[in-house]
Amino acid sequence: MINARAEAFAPASMGNVGCGFDILGLAFEEPGDTVIVEPRDEPGVVIAAIEGDGGKLPRDPAKNSAAVAANSVLNLLGTPHGVSLTLHKNLPLASGLGSSAASAVAAAVAVDALFGMPLTLPQLLPACLDGEAAVSGYHPDNVGPSLLGGITLITGTNINEIRRLPVPDNLHCALVTPCIAVPTSEARAVLPEMVPLTRLVAQTGAVARLVDALYRGDLETVAAAMESDRIIEPARAHLMPLLAEMRAAAKRAGALALVISGAGPTLCAVCDSAPTAQRVAAAMGVLYDEAGIANVPRHTRVSTNGARVIAVT
Amino acid sequence: MINARAEAFAPASMGNVGCGFDILGLAFEEPGDTVIVEPRDEPGVVIAAIEGDGGKLPRDPAKNSAAVAANSVLNLLGTPHGVSLTLHKNLPLASGLGSSAASAVAAAVAVDALFGMPLTLPQLLPACLDGEAAVSGYHPDNVGPSLLGGITLITGTNINEIRRLPVPDNLHCALVTPCIAVPTSEARAVLPEMVPLTRLVAQTGAVARLVDALYRGDLETVAAAMESDRIIEPARAHLMPLLAEMRAAAKRAGALALVISGAGPTLCAVCDSAPTAQRVAAAMGVLYDEAGIANVPRHTRVSTNGARVIAVT
Repeated sequence: MINARAEAFAPASMGNVGCGFDILGLAFEEPGDTVIVEPRDEPGVVIAAIEGDGGKLPRDPAKNSAAVAANSVLNLLGTPHGVSLTLHKNLPLASGLGSSAASAVAAAVAVDALFGMPLTLPQLLPACLDGEAAVSGYHPDNVGPSLLGGITLITGTNINEIRRLPVPDNLHCALVTPCIAVPTSEARAVLPEMVPLTRLVAQTGAVARLVDALYRGDLETVAAAMESDRIIEPARAHLMPLLAEMRAAAKRAGALALVISGAGPTLCAVCDSAPTAQRVAAAMGVLYDEAGIANVPRHTRVSTNGARVIAVT
Repeated sequence: MINARAEAFAPASMGNVGCGFDILGLAFEEPGDTVIVEPRDEPGVVIAAIEGDGGKLPRDPAKNSAAVAANSVLNLLGTPHGVSLTLHKNLPLASGLGSSAASAVAAAVAVDALFGMPLTLPQLLPACLDGEAAVSGYHPDNVGPSLLGGITLITGTNINEIRRLPVPDNLHCALVTPCIAVPTSEARAVLPEMVPLTRLVAQTGAVARLVDALYRGDLETVAAAMESDRIIEPARAHLMPLLAEMRAAAKRAGALALVISGAGPTLCAVCDSAPTAQRVAAAMGVLYDEAGIANVPRHTRVSTNGARVIAVT
C-alpha cells in the first residue's frame, strides 16, 4: 500500500539535560520540523524543497539528514519505490535544539506513513540514526527523544538502551535561542579529555539525584540536579553569550534552574508553570535584546509522544 | 529518663554498590555489630569491653568509632552523665563491610535508647559521622545505609542529602570475605586522580540505569548496571584475590553480577533468590578454599530498617 502523500512532525530536543552529558535527552512539544513525502517510481530520495533554512542545508540527498533517514527507511521497507521529500525547517541550525535529528526523525516517520506505517517508532530508530550520522554522528541524544518523546536515558544506540524516564507534571521550559551558531564540533572541542575523580563523583551523584527526583516528581530537586554539572558547562560557558547573567535573570523571573540545551547556544530554564515559563522566556529575550543580540524566546513543555504523523492522503 | 542498660544493633553495609563510587551504599540484614551501654555518673565514654576484634581496635575512646559516636550523642543530648560501652564485633575489620560505621551507628543508637530515645535515627547521623571520621573519614557511604537501612543515594553529609532508593523484592546477596585486610587508605591510593571523559559518560550512564532499574524493580538491569563500573574496579582488581575467577564461579552458580563491596576485599554477588544466594556463597567459599585462602561466605538480603534497638532495661 502506497499513499499519495504523507506529512510528519518531529520535535526539537535538548541533549544532556544539564548534568547528563551524552546520556540524557528531552523532547520539547515545540518547535519542530515537518517533512512531506510523495512516492516516486524511481528508487531513492530526491529533495523537492527545503524551506526555512535560509538556504544553508545541503540539497544533496547523501548529505541531508532528512534524505538519508528517508532512504534508510526505504531500504528497511525493501521497496523499489522512492520518495520526493519536502522539508519545512522550524528549528534554527546549530542551536542546541537537535535540528538535524528532528529533520531525520520527521522524514523517517513520514516515509513509514507513506507506505502504510508498517514499522513502529522504535523500529525507525536505526534509520533516524543514519540520518543524524550523515551530519553529526551516530548518537541518539537527540534522535531518541525526538522520536519517542519524553525524557530519555540513553546508554547505547540500540532501542533497548534507550529508556523513557518519568516526567513531572509541572515541568515547563523557557527557551531562548540567541542568533549565533555554535557548531557541535566546536562545542565538543572545548571539552576536557580528562576529568578529576572528585568531579566524577559529583556528576554521578547529580545524575542519580536527577533520575530519583524524576521518579518522585520532585521538580525542585530535578532542577537543582540538572544545574549541578561542574564539568561540561564550565568548559562551554564562554561560548554562550551572557550565560551567568541569563541564569540570574531567569531565576529572578521565577525559574528553578537554567541549563545549556545540548551543545548550545540555546538556553533552557526549568519552570513550574506555564505562566512562569512565559514570563521567564520574555525576561531572557529582553536581556539579549538589551545586549543587542537577536534572539528567539519560546516557552513549551516536554513532548509526551515525540514524533507524529500529521496527515496521510 | 535514664535506663539501666541499652543494647543496639547496626548492620554491615556495602559502599559504592558497584558503579556508584562514593554515592551509593547498601545495608545488609546481617552480619552487624552490637553495642551495650550503661550509664555512669561521670561524663564521657569509657570502653568496658570489646569482643570479637582480636584485640585490634583501639581502646582509647578518642580513637574508637563506637566511643566517639557515643560521646557525640551525649553532647547532642546535653547530659552530664556518661556511659560505659561494650562492643561486640561481628564484622571483620578492613573488609569492605563498613565495620567502623556499624560500630559507630550501633553505639549512637544504644546511647539514644539509654536516655529514652529522644532522638530519631536521622538525627543521630552527625554523631555516627563523628564516629566514622575518627577512624576513616567524615563520609556517610557506610554510616548512611547502616543507620537508615536499604539502598541509599548519598550526595552530601546532611541528612537531606541521603535518600533511600527502592529495593527490588527479589534482591539477595551472596558475600565472601577472604581473610586478608585491604585498608581503605590503600584501596583509595590506587585510584586514578583523573578519568577520561568517555569513562565519565559510561559511569553516569551506569548509575542512571541503576537508579531507573531500582525504581522499576528490574533486578537483571540492576545487576548489569552495578557491574558496569569501568573506573574503580579495574584500579582495585589486583588487591582482590581471584576476582575474575570469583565472578565466573558466582555466575556459574547462578549469580547475576558480582561487585567489590566498598573498598574490598569482600565480594558481593547479586542473586535473585535465597537458594541461589546460598549456593553462590558456597561456591565462592569453595573457590577460596581450593586456593588456600581462609574465607567467610555469607548470604543475606538488604536490610529494610537499618539500625535497631535490641533491648532496654
